[in-house]
Amino acid sequence: MRSICAIEGVEAAGIKEGKHGLALIRAEGTAAGVFTSNLVRAAPIELMLERIRSGRLAGICVNSSCANAHTGRRGLEDAAAMAAIGARALGVDEREVGIASTGVIGRYLDLPLIERQAGALAGTLARSEAAETAAARAIMTTDLVEKHALVRGDGFSIGGICKGSGMIAPNMGTMLAFLYTDAAIEQPILSAALRLATDRTFNRVVVDGDTSTNDVAFLTATGAAGRIDANRFEKALEACCRALAIQIAADGEGATRLIEVTVTGAPEEEDAAEVARTIVGSSLVKTAVYGEDPNWGRVIAAAGRAGVEFDPYGVSLAIGEGEGRVPLVARGEIVVDLARAKAAMAGKRVVFTLDLDAGEGEATAWGCDLTEGYVEINGKYTT
Amino acid sequence: MRSICAIEGVEAAGIKEGKHGLALIRAEGTAAGVFTSNLVRAAPIELMLERIRSGRLAGICVNSSCANAHTGRRGLEDAAAMAAIGARALGVDEREVGIASTGVIGRYLDLPLIERQAGALAGTLARSEAAETAAARAIMTTDLVEKHALVRGDGFSIGGICKGSGMIAPNMGTMLAFLYTDAAIEQPILSAALRLATDRTFNRVVVDGDTSTNDVAFLTATGAAGRIDANRFEKALEACCRALAIQIAADGEGATRLIEVTVTGAPEEEDAAEVARTIVGSSLVKTAVYGEDPNWGRVIAAAGRAGVEFDPYGVSLAIGEGEGRVPLVARGEIVVDLARAKAAMAGKRVVFTLDLDAGEGEATAWGCDLTEGYVEINGKYTT
Repeated sequence: MRSICAIEGVEAAGIKEGKHGLALIRAEGTAAGVFTSNLVRAAPIELMLERIRSGRLAGICVNSSCANAHTGRRGLEDAAAMAAIGARALGVDEREVGIASTGVIGRYLDLPLIERQAGALAGTLARSEAAETAAARAIMTTDLVEKHALVRGDGFSIGGICKGSGMIAPNMGTMLAFLYTDAAIEQPILSAALRLATDRTFNRVVVDGDTSTNDVAFLTATGAAGRIDANRFEKALEACCRALAIQIAADGEGATRLIEVTVTGAPEEEDAAEVARTIVGSSLVKTAVYGEDPNWGRVIAAAGRAGVEFDPYGVSLAIGEGEGRVPLVARGEIVVDLARAKAAMAGKRVVFTLDLDAGEGEATAWGCDLTEGYVEINGKYTT
Repeated sequence: MRSICAIEGVEAAGIKEGKHGLALIRAEGTAAGVFTSNLVRAAPIELMLERIRSGRLAGICVNSSCANAHTGRRGLEDAAAMAAIGARALGVDEREVGIASTGVIGRYLDLPLIERQAGALAGTLARSEAAETAAARAIMTTDLVEKHALVRGDGFSIGGICKGSGMIAPNMGTMLAFLYTDAAIEQPILSAALRLATDRTFNRVVVDGDTSTNDVAFLTATGAAGRIDANRFEKALEACCRALAIQIAADGEGATRLIEVTVTGAPEEEDAAEVARTIVGSSLVKTAVYGEDPNWGRVIAAAGRAGVEFDPYGVSLAIGEGEGRVPLVARGEIVVDLARAKAAMAGKRVVFTLDLDAGEGEATAWGCDLTEGYVEINGKYTT
């Protein structure tokens, strides 16, 4: 099993009918959640901000195609009804069902459809590769591939599925992630670990700079593997989230290439992250990567508008990695060999390394190129 | 005459050879400038930040195709040399020549080319429609049309040319604007008026969210028309800059439609501007407009991430204007008629009006749709 069903006690099911998907996951345990930073929050987010305070989840019910966002009081009632439908199908308390929605904003949930799909799934919950794949596919919108990750620690494991694709920006895009571990972790530590891992991974993915109304990541710890050292757990969780985040970036809408930007020498880690995010989010950098155009000045220009202080003539910039690493700027001096730089852009993964020479802060961000495909996908999304 | 040459005492000339353009403008007077907010500033910006302190300009020399940005000490020497070349061609003091560059970052100026072009232009400086058009064309990069504006006040006039197109974001894109007036205005008032007009017009245009290293707007007041009331002058200058800003948005790289977003009911004007800019800059809104997809939830979602406080269920949103105005959301209630909303997106100009119901602040921002054309233009820019 590639992800969540590798964790003892986790059962999944999923169905996708045209654009309309529903996933159910059953797993009881201590739980934590992180949510969108958008002021406009979807109804399921409002509901879960309240309910996750209990620190426990017994299952999850997620639909795709309708975001149940900007739907007012009726949306909130629909969200609660969806939790109740999920609870019946999962055979658990509705107050312990995590719900999430993704899709078009400003439309009401089709509750009869969700009820029918949940009913059909109830008998199919299973702990198998087919089941986790069905769940991962059910939550997809414009994603092209389902996303799984599994990290095995010493005596415990963490598995996750997620969806991403568009409206992906700093502070979580329309990103849904469902993470499970068999480690026994106290709720406050679980919460803090999820927040930190999210900041360092999901919040460093930029597809188009838009932030969704519906983002959420839930982490449930079943405890079957017993107590695990918090530090080791945090590292494994970050690795698991990083693996998912990179899959989201690589599968950005219309993407043909993953862009990875590592910034070193920033005053603080958060400064490095901000510069790295600004670069991977730059439309000009993204189109240059798509065109295999070694227009490195756009990288420097993007760094310059990130709001972080550094000396433009102290920076060093390289493209590529390992043997294929090509220096472009060395401490402010232009040293680029354009033919070699172009060659370093030929693969499916384009790596930039920028040293600001202004401190010890270091961070990596991930994004993708901007192509005609993104325009096509998003020009006709609702119609 | 459509722009700068309508102002007494302003002579222009321009040449474009392939990508390589040079424009000269001669006009003596009190002058002010505003410059890019990018930390990475091109050499001509560094030079002019210093020289504009004199508060006077006698002429302008501008090249296109090379930005002379991130070119270190040599870039600064080249910028000074370019000012000297311009001064010889214009027959004025080199310390009173405003210079500007636009094009690829990280390349050195071709001074022999600039010298040859300036020499060829020296004898052609003229006050004519052909001359102002030649200058406006010479400064274009990926612009498709040259940009002119002329506002006639009571007893004075203001004319301007500019270029824009890509790397256009809040706080000035690769935007060069050269403005002239025959009004006699004291330097501090001229400076303040240019800053205010820029904030309300050029800084409210978003093409792709990237901010250039080379932006500049110069305003020269010849004084031929005598003293003019500061208030009337400010209004006319804002109108002139607005006319140019709208032309920049409409001619954004690959654009097929102008997007105009007016936000009302914000706590302050700057809050309204921030929300309006976030909406016109949203890739999801831009692609929806391109696809004539009335996916209005993306407008609300973009507003929600602008960092301004409001009640999502207090807002009202409409598309279109005048007779064609179609309400989408009325005080949080969804009231959209999708067919009519789609019809309101058929023209070359798509207007959104968003009332936040959170104060008296009001602002308009301009942008353009995101199309395959943008990706094509920027995927192969330097090659």
